[in-house]
Amino acid sequence: MNKGTLALLIHGATENWSPARWKSRFDQVCPDRRVLLLPDSGFDPAEVHYAAVWKPSPGELAAFPNLRVIFNLGAGVDALMADGRLPNVPLVRVAVSDLTARMTEYVVLHVLMHHRQELYLRASQREKRWAPKSQWPASAISAGIMGLGTLGADAARALAKLGFRVSGWSRSPKEIDGIDCFHGQAQLEPFLQQTDILVCLLPLTPDTRHILNRGLFSRLNRSSPMGAPVLINAGRGGLQNEADILACLDDGTLGAASLDVYATEPLPPDSPFWTHPKVVLTPHNAADTDPDEISKYVARQIERFEAGGTLENIVNPTRGY
Amino acid sequence: MNKGTLALLIHGATENWSPARWKSRFDQVCPDRRVLLLPDSGFDPAEVHYAAVWKPSPGELAAFPNLRVIFNLGAGVDALMADGRLPNVPLVRVAVSDLTARMTEYVVLHVLMHHRQELYLRASQREKRWAPKSQWPASAISAGIMGLGTLGADAARALAKLGFRVSGWSRSPKEIDGIDCFHGQAQLEPFLQQTDILVCLLPLTPDTRHILNRGLFSRLNRSSPMGAPVLINAGRGGLQNEADILACLDDGTLGAASLDVYATEPLPPDSPFWTHPKVVLTPHNAADTDPDEISKYVARQIERFEAGGTLENIVNPTRGY
Ligand SMILES: NC(=O)c1ccc[n+]([C@@H]2O[C@H](COP(=O)([O-])OP(=O)(O)OC[C@H]3O[C@@H](n4cnc5c(N)ncnc54)[C@H](OP(=O)(O)O)[C@@H]3O)[C@@H](O)[C@H]2O)c1
Ligand SMILES: NC(=O)c1ccc[n+]([C@@H]2O[C@H](COP(=O)([O-])OP(=O)(O)OC[C@H]3O[C@@H](n4cnc5c(N)ncnc54)[C@H](OP(=O)(O)O)[C@@H]3O)[C@@H](O)[C@H]2O)c1
Repeated sequence: MNKGTLALLIHGATENWSPARWKSRFDQVCPDRRVLLLPDSGFDPAEVHYAAVWKPSPGELAAFPNLRVIFNLGAGVDALMADGRLPNVPLVRVAVSDLTARMTEYVVLHVLMHHRQELYLRASQREKRWAPKSQWPASAISAGIMGLGTLGADAARALAKLGFRVSGWSRSPKEIDGIDCFHGQAQLEPFLQQTDILVCLLPLTPDTRHILNRGLFSRLNRSSPMGAPVLINAGRGGLQNEADILACLDDGTLGAASLDVYATEPLPPDSPFWTHPKVVLTPHNAADTDPDEISKYVARQIERFEAGGTLENIVNPTRGY
Repeated sequence: MNKGTLALLIHGATENWSPARWKSRFDQVCPDRRVLLLPDSGFDPAEVHYAAVWKPSPGELAAFPNLRVIFNLGAGVDALMADGRLPNVPLVRVAVSDLTARMTEYVVLHVLMHHRQELYLRASQREKRWAPKSQWPASAISAGIMGLGTLGADAARALAKLGFRVSGWSRSPKEIDGIDCFHGQAQLEPFLQQTDILVCLLPLTPDTRHILNRGLFSRLNRSSPMGAPVLINAGRGGLQNEADILACLDDGTLGAASLDVYATEPLPPDSPFWTHPKVVLTPHNAADTDPDEISKYVARQIERFEAGGTLENIVNPTRGY
């Protein structure tokens, strides 16, 4: 088999993820393969066998009749799943240790920030008040992770090592040492009831859209030692009902929130999240993965595929993740 | 041997550590022992065999001629060491897993805050700027822990598990799995040279007073991926030259600092630390330990001592820690 051509379709790139940077990385890791950065005029769409994509436009991938595999240059495929003309070939998502480790950093940081009352301590500093408040040991606080996949399971283990009580919730049953595992709709309620800090690392699918809403928040531990439970969402903005989050922060159903993802990104300047005193906001950079690691992962998978091996981390189109 | 009387000398207590709270805890954990909360008039100083102390006044302990053991209700004994009339009996300091776990929480939180550019991200939120900056993986950052005792060794292990490169510095040689161990004056320079985030968990002794000064800061990694290296001090305020910290933050020798301890506590309202944009300040509450855990630890040690066993965590008066 000839070495197939790889086309890069990269949109909405940020400073750190410029299309040119991706192109030069892929040229390095695929030295004997033709790598096209689209748009490009001097090629025949029928030559393209692989596509590596970042936020492609709907229908854009349908232009390549001989596509064999699509590689999404991130972990979440919700945007691709919404493309009604997506070619019926394997779609591979990113799962590399560099991404996982960074997401675990984000989760540990934000859980500790809320657990150790950073919002209160920063306000005390601004007000020049020396006013230590008693703190809970990690063993008194229960972190609940929604989504026990590549990212959720790793974050859960890291939190457990720091002494937190950790539980998790997934679609199918799991067994993870030291983690109290719940699954399915029937076990959502008991999972939520004992959770003080809720961490959402779910994919966005028709089943999970707007799952983070008032109904769910009101089922979190109502006798939390922290006063009110806390939400951390680093999954996708579409998972959250933003009006509900704001109302629940204001009426005390939630004590605070760390958000990395939003219904609209970049977050519009008039979003109340920017200035809300109980919101810790990050600009969708919980796990900005090294393009080097991702390009090597894609190159390795193409090599293996061409050698007759199997692809890893293929998205199940029925489940949508 | 009769059950000896335990006297509690507790000064400068905060809301969380009221003398009355200590007294009721000790009454619970020493049910058959006389526990006195000083000042108290109805007793003979000669009856007192044990003293559990928190910031006693200099000379105060000399009033008890039959003292057998002094228990300091915290980990640091620098204030007691400065008492020229301290009775020549064993002085035991606190080393309990509750305290250690809390300090590790503090260290992991503050290392992650600087590593993940929280100061920048909070400023961006205040200014309503959606401006992700590229982040380093933990594996690109070297955390250096000064002091590899009960606290330093545990914090070092936790940081290593999160993927940081971790080194440590102590007086005597150590071997800790996964940690690059340096010791003594001769190895201070190579330890500092490769450190991006310096975490100080040293005790305050004549040898360590003002060890955190410009000379030391200027030896930290000058080609740090973080730009300038960061200081985190949760040891004692006497370890730091505060004028040097401020000057080094202002001229870029240091990029930022997290401080839990100060030369004068509570931190005076006119201290420039309160408002410095590169300082993350906490009110000496990195490891506010549960009085329950400490009182059980003291009660256990007294029981063992009276049964002819040995005391743990005795301070070496020559070394001063
Ligand atoms: N903010 C960022 O920078 C960033 C970066 C990367 C990824 N992400 C987001 O993180 C998400 C998770 O990534 P991952 O690699 O961990 O994905 P993954 O390995 O596919 O794991 C997804 C987890 O969610 C569970 N799940 C899915 N649908 C569910 C449902 N309806 N009910 C209960 N559980 C359900 C799955 O359950 P089963 O195990 O039973 O299948 C699985 O445990 C991505 O989809 C992406 O949106 C965000
Ligand atoms: N901020 C807070 O809330 C808080 C709470 C608790 C404790 N603390 C502070 O933390 C300090 C450390 O506690 P710990 O329980 O870890 O003490 P520790 O077990 O006695 O450990 C002290 C460490 O410092 C090293 N050291 C001492 N003098 C040194 C010198 N001159 N040069 C190089 N290394 C030196 C020791 O080296 P060796 O191992 O070779 O002896 C040891 O590794 C306490 O003294 C206290 O001041 C602060």
